[in-house]
Amino acid sequence: MGIEKIGIVGLGLMGGSLALALRKKYQNIKIYGYDHNSEHAEEARELGLVKEVVDDYSKLDMCDVIFLATPIDGSIEILQNLSNIKKETTIVDLGSTKALISNTTPSTIRENLVAAHPMTGTEKSGPSASFETLYAGKTVVLCDINKSGEKQQKLAQKIFTDIGMKIVYMDSKEHDRHAAYISHMPHAISYALANSVMKQEDPRSIIALAGGGFRDMSRIAKSSPKMWSGIFKRNKEHILESIESFKNELEKCEKFIENEEWDLLQAWMKEANKLHDIL
Amino acid sequence: MGIEKIGIVGLGLMGGSLALALRKKYQNIKIYGYDHNSEHAEEARELGLVKEVVDDYSKLDMCDVIFLATPIDGSIEILQNLSNIKKETTIVDLGSTKALISNTTPSTIRENLVAAHPMTGTEKSGPSASFETLYAGKTVVLCDINKSGEKQQKLAQKIFTDIGMKIVYMDSKEHDRHAAYISHMPHAISYALANSVMKQEDPRSIIALAGGGFRDMSRIAKSSPKMWSGIFKRNKEHILESIESFKNELEKCEKFIENEEWDLLQAWMKEANKLHDIL
Repeated sequence: MGIEKIGIVGLGLMGGSLALALRKKYQNIKIYGYDHNSEHAEEARELGLVKEVVDDYSKLDMCDVIFLATPIDGSIEILQNLSNIKKETTIVDLGSTKALISNTTPSTIRENLVAAHPMTGTEKSGPSASFETLYAGKTVVLCDINKSGEKQQKLAQKIFTDIGMKIVYMDSKEHDRHAAYISHMPHAISYALANSVMKQEDPRSIIALAGGGFRDMSRIAKSSPKMWSGIFKRNKEHILESIESFKNELEKCEKFIENEEWDLLQAWMKEANKLHDIL
Repeated sequence: MGIEKIGIVGLGLMGGSLALALRKKYQNIKIYGYDHNSEHAEEARELGLVKEVVDDYSKLDMCDVIFLATPIDGSIEILQNLSNIKKETTIVDLGSTKALISNTTPSTIRENLVAAHPMTGTEKSGPSASFETLYAGKTVVLCDINKSGEKQQKLAQKIFTDIGMKIVYMDSKEHDRHAAYISHMPHAISYALANSVMKQEDPRSIIALAGGGFRDMSRIAKSSPKMWSGIFKRNKEHILESIESFKNELEKCEKFIENEEWDLLQAWMKEANKLHDIL
């Protein structure tokens, strides 16, 4: 398949973990990294995530594949600046919203781009959060795949499969709506849950009682505000729609409690149990 | 400390796991079980959770300690019927709301009762969900402890410590309010999240994208509707208050997104991050 050199822009959790997974799989490959935060770049090199870092992402143009593991606004800008990339090069964007990237990439390099969203991550960020198995066994969504060149499609499919991912195909707009429900809105809920407890008179006494349920529900409230406010900005309409849908359900629950309609409350809970027949 | 016989009423996840933990710790003890669901009782015996089951909980009156691992309404009724229990016997109620139990137990046996809430559990229920380490390393809240007799206090403290729990003391009403925030309201959120996704046109396509965040956030939406509607019924006011507080935070998030106030959104997320300095 001819992969000799891979470039990774953004050496945080996603980019750093990808470097580790790729090196494990492809022993003879050279991986070049870039991060606009020079401390992160140096840290990634010291941690051995990448062997070599470059001081400008344009220097990655000699790579067969360039992964963009950067916040969405960064990726959009980078794609504008890579508009002279070679015809054969594959660029894989890994951001959490896809329609904007898919539609704003310069048409001259649209076939170079594969718009991907790996459905994985943790609440941690930065190079030191990276680990080799972040991607293994997880799903990656490839969006608007017919807009990518044939070579680029095949290369991206091969790499994601090689690092153990399951591939799902989707229209980018449909992806953004689905991602709002399954990932973005749950982050809003987790942040709101954490804040509602923190606002109480004595949060320490409340939090002393935390069991596994609360820990799980509040874990993603540790996530990076910078990254997530960026995602909310770029998927505004779908996130607002999904929050409304969630509030609507929560308000049903409230009404059943207020009206002491315990049978209706139980039936509503039983509906929710059904999620796990398909999850 | 003179513990020879222990009775457990309710042989589901909580009671069954307690039996396993107790037998591990106290090898020479006899554990008697009761469950009003005779199939559950038989299953618990077959699984080896208890060696002997009785057909009426009143027959547990020869035990040194009786644990009530039953839904709250069941426990209230049982306590009414145990009002002739011996002065030395310890009864430990393990339910999720405590003020009602603490205040409705007949005064003749109030000193027998220790009102406890172990802050542990899983989304599973029934005897087969039991496992030995459910309680280990977790927190148990002892409520209105001065209303328990001295002997009963000491015995409960010893047992919970012996099975590896950390003890916290709290007024029962304060407990109920705290438990609403840290446990009950998060269950309402998880059920609402599951239902909001299930109501979409194509839930399977959305759920196919589920990563770790959504799995964690929706895990407790598998929990027993019967048990949780009972808890919501018995902690109505505090749960409604905590849902309001949560909605208030979620609506701040919504407003920031609607108004495109990204800096305020980020600041709000940063507040939520602080939870994890104390959790």
